[in-house]
Parts: sequence; structure tokens; C-alpha cells
Amino acid sequence: MQQLTIIPPRSGVSFILKKGQRLTIVDIEGEQVSDFICYNLHDKAEYLSSGRTIDYAETIFLTTGHPFYSNRSNIMFDMISDTVGRHDFLLTPCSADTFRIIYGHTEPHRGCFGNLCEALKEYGITPDNIPVSFNIFMHVTVDEDNGKVSVLPPKSKAGDYVVLEARMDLLVGLTACSAEMSNNYSFKPIGYRIE
Amino acid sequence: MQQLTIIPPRSGVSFILKKGQRLTIVDIEGEQVSDFICYNLHDKAEYLSSGRTIDYAETIFLTTGHPFYSNRSNIMFDMISDTVGRHDFLLTPCSADTFRIIYGHTEPHRGCFGNLCEALKEYGITPDNIPVSFNIFMHVTVDEDNGKVSVLPPKSKAGDYVVLEARMDLLVGLTACSAEMSNNYSFKPIGYRIE
Repeated sequence: MQQLTIIPPRSGVSFILKKGQRLTIVDIEGEQVSDFICYNLHDKAEYLSSGRTIDYAETIFLTTGHPFYSNRSNIMFDMISDTVGRHDFLLTPCSADTFRIIYGHTEPHRGCFGNLCEALKEYGITPDNIPVSFNIFMHVTVDEDNGKVSVLPPKSKAGDYVVLEARMDLLVGLTACSAEMSNNYSFKPIGYRIE
Repeated sequence: MQQLTIIPPRSGVSFILKKGQRLTIVDIEGEQVSDFICYNLHDKAEYLSSGRTIDYAETIFLTTGHPFYSNRSNIMFDMISDTVGRHDFLLTPCSADTFRIIYGHTEPHRGCFGNLCEALKEYGITPDNIPVSFNIFMHVTVDEDNGKVSVLPPKSKAGDYVVLEARMDLLVGLTACSAEMSNNYSFKPIGYRIE
């Protein structure tokens, strides 16, 4: 089996995932979130859409068997394996503004948002093109009565993973998340493998 | 008091809402959803972001007192009055694809998505620029255990309304929603007033 590529703590990468290829994303040490976004490689105005995906899946908890849709309602990839079963698709990548507004930091980290911007810049993606991300291993609960959103420690243990299979050629952005609360206050790496 | 402008059933409009102006959106007959999207009038790459707004509000149920954020984490407007208290910010505007995928229609209506595209075309907004909408009066529940998303009849009665106050100059798209399930299987008009 091919080795994992490592995304160091609080950083991000971009790469191409061709139609039919499988992407395995591994929580190497446990309780670490990985923000995922993607675009149609050949027309980057087509991007992964939380709203379309949740609408068609009729659940906010996406897992094995769910197709993930673009803003144009095309299937971009399927999740074909998932050892955790709890990820978030409501929230945006953490950013300097997140750290400023939610955490009150005065010299904020650029967050997953800044890391994705940097990693995708070479493909012509601008900050305004970064949509709501699929936040793998992120444990977000919603109180069904009052709507309250809570960010809890991830349910993922060391070695847990998801596998995504591309249904079109994709440009992918992927991070080891930078937000304290999302990762139970410890920043760890994320591993990935393309097969 | 200024008269209401009427959006006929299954249609949409666009208009400018200047900073400080108040927009009242009225469910004239009851149980009718209105999809709302907006852009910074002077730089339309800045748009209303469900992810940023939910993240900072820490709830999926936005109501009186909540600021609504752009993708750049700027406040676009505040909700200053709300006689219903239940709206949706998870789902995308209904579209021909929605009707095809969810309802199985073979000759689908263009939906709120198509209506918004048409109404905003003159301002240079393309279909790929239509984000997740704030679906006023839409009654969406989330099962906190399994994440299941359900669309129920709106809680709004005839005459119920929300009031939004712009915090920047906005280009607004607004509809009388076209999806059967969202409106308890009856298509009605929506009224609005700018003050």
C-alpha cells in the first residue's frame, strides 16, 4: 500500500484527483479535523456545495454511500468508506476572522481559510472562491429544539479514515485544521493517499 | 405606511437595498417561503454566507438580533424583527435539478434558482454565483441524533413578517418559493416593502 502524504499541523495542501481515483484521508493521531473543498478541475466555477449535498441526502451527517454534489447539482465524489461516521458540512473553514470573532484573538492565525487560499492560489482560486468546506472528522451537534450548534472533540481515534472516490476530475484543497475547539485543543497532522 | 410590492407565486425579483434601509418581507397568505440572497452592491464577489453566519451565531435558527455575515465575515444586515422565529439557512434554492432529483419531475419548473438567475442577470450575476439562500419562513428540522433533515409546513400565518436592516449597500434577490413541500403544497405570493 502506498505511503501516506503528511499535512503538518495547522497547514494545507492542494492536489488533483482524477475521475475514478480514490482519496483516503487519515486522522493519524486522533481527534484532528481536516477541511476539504474541491472544484471541477476543468471549470473551477463548479464547486462542492453543502446546500445541494445536504438537500439531496436529506441529512446533515454525510457518510458512506452519500454522493457529494456541486453547485450545479452534479456528483463530484462518493464517500465509499468511513470509520467514524461524524463529520461537519455546516461551517466555513476557520479563518483570521473566526479567531478574531469567536476566540477574540488580536493577532489571529490565518486558519484553514488562509491555508486553502495559499494552497489553491496557483490554480487561480481566490479567497472569494472558497465555499463552505466539508469538515472531515469535525464533530458538530445541532440541538433540534433551539438550533444551537456546538463544536465537540472529534469522535475519530488514531488511524480512523474516510475514502472518497472522484466522479469527475477534481482540484482538491485539504488541511490539518487550525482551530483549537475543533481539535480538542491540540494541533496534529493529517495523512492522505491517492490510489 | 408604504404599500407592499407583490412577488407573484413561483417567481422572483431583484432590487437594491441601501445601507440603513429596512426591508420587510411579509407572508401575505401564510405558509409561504421566500428565498433571500444578497451581494455587496459595489463588489458582488462578496455574498451572504450561510457558513459564516451560522458559525458566528452558533445556531442554525437565525432570528431577531442576529447579524448576517458575508463570505468575507462582514455584517451585511441584521434581522431586527421576526414574528415567526423559524427559517432555514441550510438548503439551496429549489431548482430544475431539485425537482428532478427530489420530486422526480421530468419537465421541471426552474424553481427559485432559475427565478433568482433571471432576476439578477441584469446585474451580472451568473448561475454559479447563486449561493445557499436564507429561506425565510421555511420550516426545516434536523434530528439531532441521526442528522435527518425534514421540510415541514411553514410556521408562518397570514401577515407574519421579518424585518432586515442593511449594514452595507446590498443587491438583493427575493422569491416566492416554487417547491411543493416547502409551502405545504400551495403556491402563494410574498410581499415586501423598503423603508
